[in-house]
Amino acid sequence: MTTAHGEVRTPVFMPVGTQGTVKAMTPDWLKEAGAGIILGNTYHLYLRPGHELIREHGGLHRFMHWDRPILTDSGGFQIFSLGPLRRITEEGVHFQSHIDGSRHFLSPERAIEIQEALGSDIMMCFDDCTPYPAERAYVEKSMALTHRWARRCRDAKKSPDQALFGIVQGGVHRDLRQASVEALTAIGFDGYAVGGLSVGEPKDLMMETVEATVPLLPAGQARYLMGVGTPEDLVEGVRHGIDLFDCVMPTRCARNGLLFTNHGKVVIKNARYRNDQAPLDEACDCYTCRNFSRAYLRHLFIAREILALMLNTIHNVRFYLALMERIRTAIAGGVFEDFRRTFGERRHDEDAGPVPEGRMDETMKTEEEDES
Amino acid sequence: MTTAHGEVRTPVFMPVGTQGTVKAMTPDWLKEAGAGIILGNTYHLYLRPGHELIREHGGLHRFMHWDRPILTDSGGFQIFSLGPLRRITEEGVHFQSHIDGSRHFLSPERAIEIQEALGSDIMMCFDDCTPYPAERAYVEKSMALTHRWARRCRDAKKSPDQALFGIVQGGVHRDLRQASVEALTAIGFDGYAVGGLSVGEPKDLMMETVEATVPLLPAGQARYLMGVGTPEDLVEGVRHGIDLFDCVMPTRCARNGLLFTNHGKVVIKNARYRNDQAPLDEACDCYTCRNFSRAYLRHLFIAREILALMLNTIHNVRFYLALMERIRTAIAGGVFEDFRRTFGERRHDEDAGPVPEGRMDETMKTEEEDES
Repeated sequence: MTTAHGEVRTPVFMPVGTQGTVKAMTPDWLKEAGAGIILGNTYHLYLRPGHELIREHGGLHRFMHWDRPILTDSGGFQIFSLGPLRRITEEGVHFQSHIDGSRHFLSPERAIEIQEALGSDIMMCFDDCTPYPAERAYVEKSMALTHRWARRCRDAKKSPDQALFGIVQGGVHRDLRQASVEALTAIGFDGYAVGGLSVGEPKDLMMETVEATVPLLPAGQARYLMGVGTPEDLVEGVRHGIDLFDCVMPTRCARNGLLFTNHGKVVIKNARYRNDQAPLDEACDCYTCRNFSRAYLRHLFIAREILALMLNTIHNVRFYLALMERIRTAIAGGVFEDFRRTFGERRHDEDAGPVPEGRMDETMKTEEEDES
Repeated sequence: MTTAHGEVRTPVFMPVGTQGTVKAMTPDWLKEAGAGIILGNTYHLYLRPGHELIREHGGLHRFMHWDRPILTDSGGFQIFSLGPLRRITEEGVHFQSHIDGSRHFLSPERAIEIQEALGSDIMMCFDDCTPYPAERAYVEKSMALTHRWARRCRDAKKSPDQALFGIVQGGVHRDLRQASVEALTAIGFDGYAVGGLSVGEPKDLMMETVEATVPLLPAGQARYLMGVGTPEDLVEGVRHGIDLFDCVMPTRCARNGLLFTNHGKVVIKNARYRNDQAPLDEACDCYTCRNFSRAYLRHLFIAREILALMLNTIHNVRFYLALMERIRTAIAGGVFEDFRRTFGERRHDEDAGPVPEGRMDETMKTEEEDES
């Protein structure tokens, strides 16, 4: 995939940089972890520090010192998550800030204007994220609004250097997904996202919808599965033809002491790691695994040290990005199916720690948990 | 100064690594900042994760992945800070943990045993830190106890690779300081600390006491001013012959958004930095100043991002260590007095942000503030 800030090798996972930083990571660390592209959140950056301020800084890349590609979401999902604090009209969405309750209005035109100020490499259409479960009639109505907004987004776009992706809606209904693909490809975008998933539907229904939708998308254009997922979800998503993923899971879980390894999940506060001198994951090449023991990581986490958040995040992000590297290598070698089978067999969780399900926002729902 | 983990160039500032980590810093960053030696806290590490666990890990150096020298305090000051939670006897101190209220006993012998388990390069004697203000009779009695404990520490010491420093007490009384120096040098230590300062006495009384005490100490042995201080204090301390300093000020202030620069103090949340595209300190070579603007640092701090704590700490630690480098260069060039005058003249605070006064513990008193 080619962007204004260089090539991106796909399939790729995008770490989430909600407020102009991937939480607890420096840009240098992200590069060391192999991040080829990161995600920024339009909603959060619009509210704080404001897109005009970032524009005056020469854009988000310069502001946060990141010279590789950035994809920005449109704010649609965050506003969807605000629930009673938002009101949807044909024109756009009236909402109140989760920070201070101040009143705002976002429309397709405004979402594009903000993303152009941020200067991201890939912009997303402002969509109406359909909840699950929902009546079929509601899903149809919501989808039609997303299509009208998609056209307004394309018409509003001025910047030639920024790509614009459409977002396919349609809930878990195959025929509606097909209608959504047809409507969006008729408008024409640089890539397409499968939206409205990971919002509470069962995992198998999510994957069935992906499986049904992806083959309908134009060959040779990027396919992006928004807000997904677990390591297993990434492998399954690639199997169904997805090129881009983003999820707060590696970073958010890291801050809560849930670590992904090649042996399964590790809940680092567990007493069994009290005197464990082994690295978190022998097979991992990250700074954390090269230099620190599980006992030390447990100590830092229990002592509520900031370094715990840093080292845990370094590891989880590297685990996700290394997984994508292995997937790309397997694809290039024509052995992805073998890889997929082995991957499923080898992972047996060391700990029974639960992995949060569903799409999450890196800021709004996790502030209390950030410090644990 | 020579230790089991190599040479240390003096005068030197030791960043404080209370719980086996200098808060919000990796060991690699500490090296990049030029840290030649760091401080570890016996009291905290004894309580959590426990010195026996660290011994099993091969000592504190290996546990925290730090291969340069470490000085450990004895726990005396932390226990002094516990106030009503401790009871002093001739034998030692009974106290309750600030973490869970559990009961413990520390004696000179025990403090040495713990520091030997930690494997620090420089151990400190277990002392009775005299409060300020205090009756002269109390100061004398407390000082005499410190001397008896100092002898017990020296007798308890088994490890030949670890140095042991005595701690001079005597409050702000010149004759008592002299008596303390005589008592401790009669026992004989590898270096000497000026203790019992920065505990609430006026700054000029502190410096007068340093000025009166240091010339009494044996030439050619390290002199350590515990728990001090501001950049100005370091310059003054060096003027009076101090070789080692430690203080939580650079790290703690960083987490609270108070940054030290060559132009004075910067309170980063101030509105004047909202759109300030300049680096924090043009003259600073740290990662933060090389890559990020004041506006970005302000945004991170206001958004309560972990990266704010990281970047602020990187800068403040580098500022302190660069200051010590400049002091060493000035001394080597025979122009320290010129340096001292220029330093005093050039610093005019950009912001009127208050710098906390007095000796502080990195954990016990700052937990609430850590996240701001």
